Amino acid sequence: MVNLISIPELRRFIASVLAAVEFPADDAETVARLMAEADARGADGHGVFRLPQYVKRIQSGGINLHPNIHVIREQAASAVVDGDNAMGHLVMSRAADIAIEKARTAGVAWVGARNSNHAGPAMLYARTPLAADMIGIYIAVGSANHLPPWGGTEMLLSTNPIAIAVPGAKHESIVLDMATTNAAYGKVKIKAQRGEQMPEGWMMDRQGKPLTDPKRANEGFLLPIGGPKGYGLSLMFGLLAGTLNGAAFGKDVVDFNADSKSHTNTGHAIVAVNIAAFADVATFKQSVDEIWEQMKSSPKLPGVDEIRLPGERSAKVFEDRMAEGVPLSDELRRALDDLADRVGVAQL
Amino acid sequence: MVNLISIPELRRFIASVLAAVEFPADDAETVARLMAEADARGADGHGVFRLPQYVKRIQSGGINLHPNIHVIREQAASAVVDGDNAMGHLVMSRAADIAIEKARTAGVAWVGARNSNHAGPAMLYARTPLAADMIGIYIAVGSANHLPPWGGTEMLLSTNPIAIAVPGAKHESIVLDMATTNAAYGKVKIKAQRGEQMPEGWMMDRQGKPLTDPKRANEGFLLPIGGPKGYGLSLMFGLLAGTLNGAAFGKDVVDFNADSKSHTNTGHAIVAVNIAAFADVATFKQSVDEIWEQMKSSPKLPGVDEIRLPGERSAKVFEDRMAEGVPLSDELRRALDDLADRVGVAQL
Repeated sequence: MVNLISIPELRRFIASVLAAVEFPADDAETVARLMAEADARGADGHGVFRLPQYVKRIQSGGINLHPNIHVIREQAASAVVDGDNAMGHLVMSRAADIAIEKARTAGVAWVGARNSNHAGPAMLYARTPLAADMIGIYIAVGSANHLPPWGGTEMLLSTNPIAIAVPGAKHESIVLDMATTNAAYGKVKIKAQRGEQMPEGWMMDRQGKPLTDPKRANEGFLLPIGGPKGYGLSLMFGLLAGTLNGAAFGKDVVDFNADSKSHTNTGHAIVAVNIAAFADVATFKQSVDEIWEQMKSSPKLPGVDEIRLPGERSAKVFEDRMAEGVPLSDELRRALDDLADRVGVAQL
Repeated sequence: MVNLISIPELRRFIASVLAAVEFPADDAETVARLMAEADARGADGHGVFRLPQYVKRIQSGGINLHPNIHVIREQAASAVVDGDNAMGHLVMSRAADIAIEKARTAGVAWVGARNSNHAGPAMLYARTPLAADMIGIYIAVGSANHLPPWGGTEMLLSTNPIAIAVPGAKHESIVLDMATTNAAYGKVKIKAQRGEQMPEGWMMDRQGKPLTDPKRANEGFLLPIGGPKGYGLSLMFGLLAGTLNGAAFGKDVVDFNADSKSHTNTGHAIVAVNIAAFADVATFKQSVDEIWEQMKSSPKLPGVDEIRLPGERSAKVFEDRMAEGVPLSDELRRALDDLADRVGVAQL
């Protein structure tokens, strides 16, 4: 059985589930649009896959369904947004809009958020400024600690991701979206769901030995990219997206996989860089295209069929899935059918 | 023979060499101060080690000794500085000062630079905003391409570094300074000078095999952290620090190790984040201390004696070297003696 679900179907399904657990209609639409976009762009660990978990948190009272998302501090090029424990998608949509508005006149703007929640894949928010001819940068404190400081065994850090989106002219935008660990935890969860083993390098156990069985994930921790460098990046992104905004970081981070009720006080930050403040926009985009072409035309190592730009695979997936729909694994399909039955909406 | 040179001695020596090759006295002092600080903080590949190369470039006409460093575009929170082919240290000192000034009122500021040159270690400029109770972020296009796109063999990218400096209260500031490759090229040069082998993982040859002899460095390329992720970071930092500012990136990058004359059009960017625009400054610094203490007190993996924060080792080196001086290898000492003789100043 092929489980291909069109993006509009997926969006309607997500919105109906959220409405069934008493989300206001507008907010349900916004979250559903962003979650379906995550799936459309190939972020399989951050789209509808998360819906059962979100619903569990909503039903446990862990999300404020009627939040007052508001700015608590601001300057010409900065703001701190208090998310009032709303779904992260709503907080970060608002934060991105504020950053774009401020960068129109200030040239650059940096907006931090506190009292937010898991917001899906980093690229969604880094991509938002693209339509305004801006570069977007997004960082976040991950929603569970899976990483010790380098040399340690206590999981005090998350996969704290960064996404950077830069627009091209005739080519796709270049969009990097990466965890500061060799693998994001969402990928571990997908391996577990599919019954597959992980490659060495993703995780290590508490004795420092490779861990490859995703069902034993709670016996070890993720490994940072470049060893101490990835630890350093995760730490600095945590200070910038968490501590600076008065959001959780370090021991304060709530494991949202294990605890569906406690407020997570998730922190994120988005930076919008107005290209026109630095360069002629058309000229800049052409220069980005040239860089794209330089990378693509490099001679290749033996055994490599193609050199890719960051986000190129995701752009191809987006094209395919907008045309043909999103493939859902049998396991995910069953989980969503169960969810639909539980909240009383039509199955996908 | 122990070659321990005090920081003031080192600074005077560098300034005298620069003055001897017709640097204006004020500029010679500024560059010498920053270069000696690089050595004091343990950035051995980016301090006085580079002086012979800088002098060669100056004597070849590759540096403008009387530059008009000026702002060519600006908004409330952004500026582009044209370095007029000055020494990078001068350009980035100016850019950092502008960023700090703008961030005082705007909350955040991002200043890019073009027509600059090698400016020493990234941390110098990320650290500059600390004294103004600001967080500093610095990125740059490296001064020679040593890295192909992931899967390729043409060296189109540099080690494009990032430094992020966040102030603490009673603890040292946390200062990450890292290349996006497993090793910076400066470390390869030091290994070569010391006649030591490199560990596997630093470099690869064009057949994809490990390269460990630093004297064969030109037969291969550096490896990015986390494979495609480090490639992605290097690429994005290049677009932000190079392309956005109209500076060199990709094929336009001049290898300043091989070519001492052509204008490099080096690009950098600095971001100053005014902590007071986001949080109470004292509270924030205490929170940074708490994170420091959390990391330090994590249980350790077998065989690990201490968990370090980014920049902690450098802070310890700084304390030692300010007290006792900078150790110079015999090879470096000889190179500096030769240089002194050539330009007609007293040896160290």
